[in-house]
Amino acid sequence: MATPFVVIGGDAAGLSAASKCKRESPDREVVVFERGQWVSYAHCGEPYFVKGEVDKLENLLSLTPADVAERDIDLRRGHEVVAVDPDTDTVTVAGPDEEFEQPYGDLLVATGARAVTGPIEGSGLDGSFPLHGLDDAAAMRAFLLDPSEDALADVGGEEYVDRERVERFGAMDPPETAAIVGGGYVGVEMAEALSAHGLDVHVFQRSDHLLVPFGEAVGEVVADEFRERGVTLHLNEEVARLAGEGRVERLECGDGTALDTDLAVVGVGVTPNTDLLDGTGIECGERGAVTVDEHGRTSAEGVYAAGDCAEDDHTVTGESVWVPLGLTANRAGRAVGSTVAGDPTPVGSIAGTAVVKAFEEECGRVGLLEDGARAAGFDPVSETLTAGSRSGYYPGAAETTVTLVADRASERLLGGAIVGTDRAAVRIDTVATALEADMTVGELERADLAYAPPFSPVWDPILVAAKVLNGKLKN
Amino acid sequence: MATPFVVIGGDAAGLSAASKCKRESPDREVVVFERGQWVSYAHCGEPYFVKGEVDKLENLLSLTPADVAERDIDLRRGHEVVAVDPDTDTVTVAGPDEEFEQPYGDLLVATGARAVTGPIEGSGLDGSFPLHGLDDAAAMRAFLLDPSEDALADVGGEEYVDRERVERFGAMDPPETAAIVGGGYVGVEMAEALSAHGLDVHVFQRSDHLLVPFGEAVGEVVADEFRERGVTLHLNEEVARLAGEGRVERLECGDGTALDTDLAVVGVGVTPNTDLLDGTGIECGERGAVTVDEHGRTSAEGVYAAGDCAEDDHTVTGESVWVPLGLTANRAGRAVGSTVAGDPTPVGSIAGTAVVKAFEEECGRVGLLEDGARAAGFDPVSETLTAGSRSGYYPGAAETTVTLVADRASERLLGGAIVGTDRAAVRIDTVATALEADMTVGELERADLAYAPPFSPVWDPILVAAKVLNGKLKN
Repeated sequence: MATPFVVIGGDAAGLSAASKCKRESPDREVVVFERGQWVSYAHCGEPYFVKGEVDKLENLLSLTPADVAERDIDLRRGHEVVAVDPDTDTVTVAGPDEEFEQPYGDLLVATGARAVTGPIEGSGLDGSFPLHGLDDAAAMRAFLLDPSEDALADVGGEEYVDRERVERFGAMDPPETAAIVGGGYVGVEMAEALSAHGLDVHVFQRSDHLLVPFGEAVGEVVADEFRERGVTLHLNEEVARLAGEGRVERLECGDGTALDTDLAVVGVGVTPNTDLLDGTGIECGERGAVTVDEHGRTSAEGVYAAGDCAEDDHTVTGESVWVPLGLTANRAGRAVGSTVAGDPTPVGSIAGTAVVKAFEEECGRVGLLEDGARAAGFDPVSETLTAGSRSGYYPGAAETTVTLVADRASERLLGGAIVGTDRAAVRIDTVATALEADMTVGELERADLAYAPPFSPVWDPILVAAKVLNGKLKN
Repeated sequence: MATPFVVIGGDAAGLSAASKCKRESPDREVVVFERGQWVSYAHCGEPYFVKGEVDKLENLLSLTPADVAERDIDLRRGHEVVAVDPDTDTVTVAGPDEEFEQPYGDLLVATGARAVTGPIEGSGLDGSFPLHGLDDAAAMRAFLLDPSEDALADVGGEEYVDRERVERFGAMDPPETAAIVGGGYVGVEMAEALSAHGLDVHVFQRSDHLLVPFGEAVGEVVADEFRERGVTLHLNEEVARLAGEGRVERLECGDGTALDTDLAVVGVGVTPNTDLLDGTGIECGERGAVTVDEHGRTSAEGVYAAGDCAEDDHTVTGESVWVPLGLTANRAGRAVGSTVAGDPTPVGSIAGTAVVKAFEEECGRVGLLEDGARAAGFDPVSETLTAGSRSGYYPGAAETTVTLVADRASERLLGGAIVGTDRAAVRIDTVATALEADMTVGELERADLAYAPPFSPVWDPILVAAKVLNGKLKN
């Protein structure tokens, strides 16, 4: 009998791989070690759970442990893999009762990433949340409740949740002010979520615009939307510390700016969980994520990596990059599952496609914008313009701002961004598909995109941008 | 001085060409002959004007005659070109006062298409409308008004509209029942528009589903939506005639089915306006549309054709086809304008991308579906499935039905269709872009599309369909 396919981490990449391998090769033993209690949960849904649009924590689970068991996967929660030995093809597992060695035939490292809070002193205080994981989300939602309410019943997920933490935050007086440190995805989504609870929300951003990976144009539209919704922006502010007696009471910036606050969300970035691989000789990139080939194989025989702990090839540059995102984690996991089952399947490349909702504004980005393009050695030409989302005479037409970036010499499309209130986010998929196919701006300009007054003007905003950018390239 | 660039037809293709030529080559004389009074109007907006969502007729004008004059284009409304002579490079023009010869350096035939009503006996009766042109739309809206209201003031566009017709219909008692003959775009949009006025709406369709070019899956969802909205469907019904004393009173089908009705919309197709070219030797295809090369040149030296009267190359087959749609008319006109001004510009190909709103359902289609693919010599493999438009836990996730079609041997994507209530229509652009790039299903499956709970699940419905279709291709 073949030695088992062992998976470290029971979230998107890990369970996609385990499921796919089992489906393709039902006789193969598949063991998944998950150090926590939760598996296969929708990290991206947490802000909406905190906001209250998602009712219960368990709604965020794609698969329950029972679902996983039904697939005949040997899922061990509360089991932390503490060492990997590629020479003997074994991992060391710290279970709830004992530590043991587990041999593997194939191994998938799918340990994900964790929130970075280090640079902010005091981020360990009660009332400061990284919002990375369901227990953070549960605690924050409990905190927002009036102490007279039953926090555990409200958040749900009783079977897995950190009950003590939920009850402790549930008993506290709800916060009135929120300081969000970092204006990236988490910060933007949490600003909306906490505003919905009536809090006085402040966002602190180190640079001069929000959502840096989406480019300035998107950042400015979102900043306007925030101001309109009563969110206070503190741009170009470096937060130094959170202070308070046991719990957060005050935020202080490097330049002396301060804010009294009783809740803080620290969303200043994530880092891959790859400490486990230190000393194994398994190659990692400069950000610490595991380097893999087109099938997700690491530098060690029989060891794969996928998801937020692994690098991917960038769709535009072909270079290995670390861009932790949901779809690519799922896809890479699934591909590794197929490969391990005997059907070598490429994990695919990553274009860095991302969309985020900021109140009513829908934001999207993909590929390389100007700075990224320049850093990658291209000579970028960029166009940003605003066009209508529908025929001008049709009710509901909304301003849609599009950025497209191309390489001057080859005229190849390199990336784009979009923001608007009317179906803007999904339009970025047009640009993502064009990048996948290495299209030039001229080819995109000639794409036969959809037109009907309720959905798009004759020239979709993306076509308008392509048309103008192509004109620039010709001059 | 060069002889002028003469354009026949002052709508999308004609005025796009005239404007672009003037912009690139300001000294070139550009003359546009338009036989009617309206120019550059949004044909696709007419149902929404009838519905009442668009306030005034003039809102449907992209350019007014004054705008055109400002571009230094010599626009002659009420001038019909009655003959083209490619041997002498002249056209014969019937103006309001006299007939004259106009020499041309370059000529663009942009005469558009007209509604076909021929097969339906009695379609010339009052109260029967083809809905092809602003005067039809104006008359229909006037008809829907109570006679006590001022029809001319309500419809607007007083400067151009057929006032006599508006006043005559405005004075009639409003209809209570509407019979729509044909379940294509016009039929579907008019069903929504007339239902909004409280009419008892009946749709008669010759085949067994609505929106034939969108495939059965879309047709069925729209049929359900229609029934839910109180629209009565008569499928597999061949309408033989409209009958009445002077105006429509009754619709009769070939099989004896009949309906008392006081309004009829006949939307059974369009045909290119190319009678003018009979005997000129200018080549036309089997549907009567002008055959052109990649720059929109006809078989006669110096004569171009663009828009609804011309063929285009199909994106998937490369064959010359006649698919009259708005974007391609605008784009081809613009390209001809550049070419005539000395910058040869391809008119682009047509993928047949179309979207239409049916009450709350958004429908899209592109490329070749199964029948079309088979007719074009492919061996099509098709997959239709229903997936969520957002993460399942996020409010507003809606069922989205996707069809994708591929060629068995090459695995190349050939076409697709989509229907759903949540941002479904614009998602067809992903498929359109993939067709533009000759992508395989596997390549589409690996595209890095957007994911965020409010806008898309981890696997966008189009990716889910690509994944399943790719699985089928591998077996």
